[in-house]
Amino acid sequence: MFYHVKDLQYNAKPAYPDPVYAKKLQEVLGGQYGEITVMMQYLFQGFNCRADAKYRDLLFDIGTEEIAHVEMLATLIARLLDNAPAKDQEQLVNSDPAIEAIMGGMNPQHAIVSGLGALPSDSVGYPWNARYTIASGNLLADFRANLNAESQGRLQVARLYNLTDDPGVRDTLSFLIARDNAHQNQWIAAIKELEAAEGDIVVPTTFPRNLQKEEVAYDFYNTSQGNESSHGPWAQGLAPDHKYYFRYVEHPVPYGPRPYLIPAPYYLFDTPPMLKA
Amino acid sequence: MFYHVKDLQYNAKPAYPDPVYAKKLQEVLGGQYGEITVMMQYLFQGFNCRADAKYRDLLFDIGTEEIAHVEMLATLIARLLDNAPAKDQEQLVNSDPAIEAIMGGMNPQHAIVSGLGALPSDSVGYPWNARYTIASGNLLADFRANLNAESQGRLQVARLYNLTDDPGVRDTLSFLIARDNAHQNQWIAAIKELEAAEGDIVVPTTFPRNLQKEEVAYDFYNTSQGNESSHGPWAQGLAPDHKYYFRYVEHPVPYGPRPYLIPAPYYLFDTPPMLKA
Amino acid sequence: MFYHVKDLQYNAKPAYPDPVYAKKLQEVLGGQYGEITVMMQYLFQGFNCRADAKYRDLLFDIGTEEIAHVEMLATLIARLLDNAPAKDQEQLVNSDPAIEAIMGGMNPQHAIVSGLGALPSDSVGYPWNARYTIASGNLLADFRANLNAESQGRLQVARLYNLTDDPGVRDTLSFLIARDNAHQNQWIAAIKELEAAEGDIVVPTTFPRNLQKEEVAYDFYNTSQGNESSHGPWAQGLAPDHKYYFRYVEHPVPYGPRPYLIPAPYYLFDTPPMLKA
Amino acid sequence: MFYHVKDLQYNAKPAYPDPVYAKKLQEVLGGQYGEITVMMQYLFQGFNCRADAKYRDLLFDIGTEEIAHVEMLATLIARLLDNAPAKDQEQLVNSDPAIEAIMGGMNPQHAIVSGLGALPSDSVGYPWNARYTIASGNLLADFRANLNAESQGRLQVARLYNLTDDPGVRDTLSFLIARDNAHQNQWIAAIKELEAAEGDIVVPTTFPRNLQKEEVAYDFYNTSQGNESSHGPWAQGLAPDHKYYFRYVEHPVPYGPRPYLIPAPYYLFDTPPMLKA
Amino acid sequence: MFYHVKDLQYNAKPAYPDPVYAKKLQEVLGGQYGEITVMMQYLFQGFNCRADAKYRDLLFDIGTEEIAHVEMLATLIARLLDNAPAKDQEQLVNSDPAIEAIMGGMNPQHAIVSGLGALPSDSVGYPWNARYTIASGNLLADFRANLNAESQGRLQVARLYNLTDDPGVRDTLSFLIARDNAHQNQWIAAIKELEAAEGDIVVPTTFPRNLQKEEVAYDFYNTSQGNESSHGPWAQGLAPDHKYYFRYVEHPVPYGPRPYLIPAPYYLFDTPPMLKA
Amino acid sequence: MFYHVKDLQYNAKPAYPDPVYAKKLQEVLGGQYGEITVMMQYLFQGFNCRADAKYRDLLFDIGTEEIAHVEMLATLIARLLDNAPAKDQEQLVNSDPAIEAIMGGMNPQHAIVSGLGALPSDSVGYPWNARYTIASGNLLADFRANLNAESQGRLQVARLYNLTDDPGVRDTLSFLIARDNAHQNQWIAAIKELEAAEGDIVVPTTFPRNLQKEEVAYDFYNTSQGNESSHGPWAQGLAPDHKYYFRYVEHPVPYGPRPYLIPAPYYLFDTPPMLKA
Repeated sequence: MFYHVKDLQYNAKPAYPDPVYAKKLQEVLGGQYGEITVMMQYLFQGFNCRADAKYRDLLFDIGTEEIAHVEMLATLIARLLDNAPAKDQEQLVNSDPAIEAIMGGMNPQHAIVSGLGALPSDSVGYPWNARYTIASGNLLADFRANLNAESQGRLQVARLYNLTDDPGVRDTLSFLIARDNAHQNQWIAAIKELEAAEGDIVVPTTFPRNLQKEEVAYDFYNTSQGNESSHGPWAQGLAPDHKYYFRYVEHPVPYGPRPYLIPAPYYLFDTPPMLKA
Repeated sequence: MFYHVKDLQYNAKPAYPDPVYAKKLQEVLGGQYGEITVMMQYLFQGFNCRADAKYRDLLFDIGTEEIAHVEMLATLIARLLDNAPAKDQEQLVNSDPAIEAIMGGMNPQHAIVSGLGALPSDSVGYPWNARYTIASGNLLADFRANLNAESQGRLQVARLYNLTDDPGVRDTLSFLIARDNAHQNQWIAAIKELEAAEGDIVVPTTFPRNLQKEEVAYDFYNTSQGNESSHGPWAQGLAPDHKYYFRYVEHPVPYGPRPYLIPAPYYLFDTPPMLKA
Repeated sequence: MFYHVKDLQYNAKPAYPDPVYAKKLQEVLGGQYGEITVMMQYLFQGFNCRADAKYRDLLFDIGTEEIAHVEMLATLIARLLDNAPAKDQEQLVNSDPAIEAIMGGMNPQHAIVSGLGALPSDSVGYPWNARYTIASGNLLADFRANLNAESQGRLQVARLYNLTDDPGVRDTLSFLIARDNAHQNQWIAAIKELEAAEGDIVVPTTFPRNLQKEEVAYDFYNTSQGNESSHGPWAQGLAPDHKYYFRYVEHPVPYGPRPYLIPAPYYLFDTPPMLKA
Repeated sequence: MFYHVKDLQYNAKPAYPDPVYAKKLQEVLGGQYGEITVMMQYLFQGFNCRADAKYRDLLFDIGTEEIAHVEMLATLIARLLDNAPAKDQEQLVNSDPAIEAIMGGMNPQHAIVSGLGALPSDSVGYPWNARYTIASGNLLADFRANLNAESQGRLQVARLYNLTDDPGVRDTLSFLIARDNAHQNQWIAAIKELEAAEGDIVVPTTFPRNLQKEEVAYDFYNTSQGNESSHGPWAQGLAPDHKYYFRYVEHPVPYGPRPYLIPAPYYLFDTPPMLKA
Repeated sequence: MFYHVKDLQYNAKPAYPDPVYAKKLQEVLGGQYGEITVMMQYLFQGFNCRADAKYRDLLFDIGTEEIAHVEMLATLIARLLDNAPAKDQEQLVNSDPAIEAIMGGMNPQHAIVSGLGALPSDSVGYPWNARYTIASGNLLADFRANLNAESQGRLQVARLYNLTDDPGVRDTLSFLIARDNAHQNQWIAAIKELEAAEGDIVVPTTFPRNLQKEEVAYDFYNTSQGNESSHGPWAQGLAPDHKYYFRYVEHPVPYGPRPYLIPAPYYLFDTPPMLKA
Repeated sequence: MFYHVKDLQYNAKPAYPDPVYAKKLQEVLGGQYGEITVMMQYLFQGFNCRADAKYRDLLFDIGTEEIAHVEMLATLIARLLDNAPAKDQEQLVNSDPAIEAIMGGMNPQHAIVSGLGALPSDSVGYPWNARYTIASGNLLADFRANLNAESQGRLQVARLYNLTDDPGVRDTLSFLIARDNAHQNQWIAAIKELEAAEGDIVVPTTFPRNLQKEEVAYDFYNTSQGNESSHGPWAQGLAPDHKYYFRYVEHPVPYGPRPYLIPAPYYLFDTPPMLKA
């Protein structure tokens, strides 16, 4: 069960309205790697957690914090939209096309649909959807998903930091960037703990290795012309799981035969073979 | 530019048709973490690569291999659908509801839409879409996305391995599981190289640390009742980036004020405040 | 069965082309609460209607009118796009960035995809989809959906009215706003009739009340800090269904236990509990 | 900012696993009118609220409760999936097709993707998306959306109640049905308060009535053959807003002319008129 | 403007309920090539038509007929769902898993969401969306889209014909199959007329041929190993547009150089090249 | 299996960066009829091909070429984004709103999400999805889909050609336009061969004609007021399949009765008929 306090986790007050920037900022609220994504991802990983209580608690701790990040960003966006399209500017439309241009950069749904409120959408107006998230039941896999989400997320917020010079907005973003710093470190720490406990780094660690086609499990196939990729640690030396050495295959060839599909039953009306054309 | 040979990278021949299993197998062809996802993700990371040639080559090497995985799985699914719904079985419908039940487990689009061919959809028939992928231009972030994709992908294929006992299908899956083993190791190796080269592990490493709110960058907030999470390496000790120690905050409080939003302009018809209700 | 006459239900002729406004106007054609939504929602409620003939007729009367609204808006949008991107303006691109800016405010698909025709999309280009609609078989529920759709719809058209001063466009919108006035009143009248006939206002009225957990059916839970909400008619006094008084619960507590999920079977490779970490 | 306690708002414990029912139950978790929808809708209405504090508080009170409903349903679904596909049943596959049939009724993603956890999807596996929600800034419109959501939601939960006889599941659902009873009443109470305060029932009440085409604002158009609909309160008598009488138009005719669209500029390659065919 | 008569264009009455078949039949109502698609595609092509009146009329004639096809299929589906899940069958659930299996083959939304009504979705429950349609303004392109839609549509209905032996359903489908026969012929006739009038068959016929890279405009590139494709009329002989002969290129080579992308600006935090790794 | 060479099939080098045009160009990369669509469509038709080897080879030849087109367009877009939003321009933001306007015309995801790389999205940022494609198993139907895709595709590229005057971009587009010329001719040639071989032009040609309602299979129904459409070859004369003459039905009437749906079972809570209202 959840409880809400009305104070924000941190400041969310721009110095000035900026509806064009509000549109861009939607990316880290309702985009693929926005705050709604991490909120939902961590909460569902928590709801579904069948592992130790400390992992369940970890997921709810960070997941619940992310609801507060959604709240902060929504508040920030609503304020960036204050008074837009502002009446004075509206009067200028016919005389100054540059102003209209700025207005043209708004997400029109901020005016027409949400009445100057934040939208659960990204910077091109595409609505958030749940396929942005994963809760697989395998925590090592999921913590890697979480680390990825925090990495892409911090990258996007950092880019947005450079796309404004509003000190209020930058203040909020500097908080979110710092929290993503914390969360990247925390998921890395959790990943290391699981890798050590499971004694392997290849997910799922409990799939019997003798059931995989071990002879191709450390090959690197050079399917793209040029050998630049042979000079990396992914193509030579001991693999990170310390089980085998990588093998660089310069001229990879097919191991399987050319497939031949049998005709479909007549009652499905596929084109039959051996048509006398 | 690309070239195709008709031989498959590996065998893709089930011992018996099994249209219900064909439906399930669609997950790792056209699902969130299926082969289309990694194919498109690596190719777009390659197309967009502005970094060293060896990374570009690495991306095209693995990306091009993934097109072959799409081909193998599509072939396997088409063969699992051979003769379905078979005429003999169809005649049994009225007399044996159990047969109809098995037929009922098919994806109906395998008959109606694709005429016994593979679909670019997942195991519930949801079509693949490009928001499953990321190519951010930041390779450390993207290689983490790739590691996540290979981890979730191998997990799903391993689960599917246990949901069949067809030796032909298991043969194909044992190959894919092994290749995902290779790719997990390879992305980990590439990640380690980038982390070493960039001298940091927090993406993006080049965002100036003094611009983030450093005082909260190593905090762990206990927002979910209970202290189980305090016993993990994410809540205490030196953070993985070796810059600070984690701080466990047992009773996190808001740092920001309660927000108050100003009224919207009248011409948007939002509900105004101070309504005499 | 349906018949078409080529005359429009009402005028749809702007005084001037305005491709940027055409983009905005798409919201009420192909958006969440646009005319396609109400057209499809009412028609499907009509197709599926298992209740009295007068409701079926009501649904087809209004649903068929809505097809004409789709037609009017599509016509209006096509005309707002006349000659865009106009050749003279195109020649100005390099010399006058403000003109380009206005062109930049167009939906590019209006030029590239539809060749200056209306799109079945909203104001950010997101395509209409059928999950915007509901036809549940329960008319009281559905008429509330219809009232909601007409309320959001009229709100959006009214906002769009204020975003233009083209007299032709305003003429068309004044018609649609009036029809939404009619339809709001009509759905309210139909709702009242059903509520009276069913003898209750809580949908579905025929679910046996003794099967619901009656002791919490009139509680208001104060889960968000602060008591401002205690001062409303939703938190005190006789409930609108006249069955009980609301109860304001200032400190709501959980009624259920802390959940514990059992481990998943090993063959699914979830992270097991009691991992020695 | 938000806080979490691990206890559930109410019991969520089925008497027996039932993976086929788990699939169905997903509808009210991640479907169009599921708990994720109301959670996100009320929270965004709260984040964006520019009206009186008591409405803001109301939205956060109910919105925060809905997060707990998401938690309960996710927990219930995870438990309905316990041990599925159970190993013993799996061994029966070849000998007893009826068991396989039951397994075939599962959502395959419950095994392959979530490892026996709840999904943020509906009963056909379609992922939740944010276009299910609305936060328009106009509270009268939005409270009607909320009333609709609670009406459709309670209807769906009531139907699901009848599709199981598991006493544990029915216990949970009886709680949710009761809370939807409360919320329907509460939104109705709030709607009445706003209608009284605004002095009108037609949203938006502040759009100047003289700007709408008043002469058609109370018409009922009989566009579908047959006069059954003339016998309802939507076609005759005083309209619910008490401003005019409805007018039943038996033979509605177009008020607008037949549209003629001018040709597109040649550089867009539309088919030109006056083609000599 | 549109008018409705309540009689159906043709019979839509199954001999028996069959909820599993109802699920399958949804494909040709709300799927990619279902009746909603052609209805919306032809109507939007009509709304947007800037060409001769006879084409506009043609589009409205067939488009309006398609609304009636939507109506027939929705009616047919509702009747196939009559009484499902029937109470008697429900009582058998625990004693006869085969019956439950049949029920398991239903689309659960037919019970939970629509209350035994048709859904605007396809056979896997995916909602119809407007990107299934095209109205480009170029009628030759669009009539080819229409011919494709009628071809895929008739194929799907024919497959569905073979998946049932209900004489009532087959009666309805035999009508739809015949109408698709008519429409395929009609679009072909219209295509031929346009090709003759425009004097070319390559869309858009008015793009100046000297602006295309004419030297590759009739090449066939053998990018897939094997020469089977050289034996078709697409690889040799005069091209259908009668302008040039096809040229079969056995060993196609790149005409362009290896691309090199310059680094991104530092403020976007892409991985820079020349990283000392 | 596939192989990659790093050289491009043709030049993809703009003379100047143009981020606004990059946004538009996304349409033919990741839109409904973009290069990803044809790539995926032809490859899946190839994977699933159960007909003659020459068709399978044809599909892989053109499908593999299309991967190279995806590569060229992605490269072109990345280069159009070089240095955007350029730092010097950024400094002008406050002093010159016109520059900001141009920047405002960018797809913000090109900066925030992809770091100046191409996106697998269209010109309004909507992600590519697999329902843009079809592989039905019936090659005559599918080749019509392919002809349609190449027609819409060439039309869109031709429009984009006219929306730029960058000689480098035009050079690339002139190549793509020529290849679409080739592919249109090639699919037409293949269609003609299949039509001749199958001895009919109505898909599927193998559905027994006596099972369709032959008496309506050549009717043209005048459901839209006005007789302009009677003057086309679709309404009179011998049908293109040479089997019957078209029949123009000036006043089409329903052949079916008015439908009446029986009530739903009480346990689904639909509104029952005969409600005493």
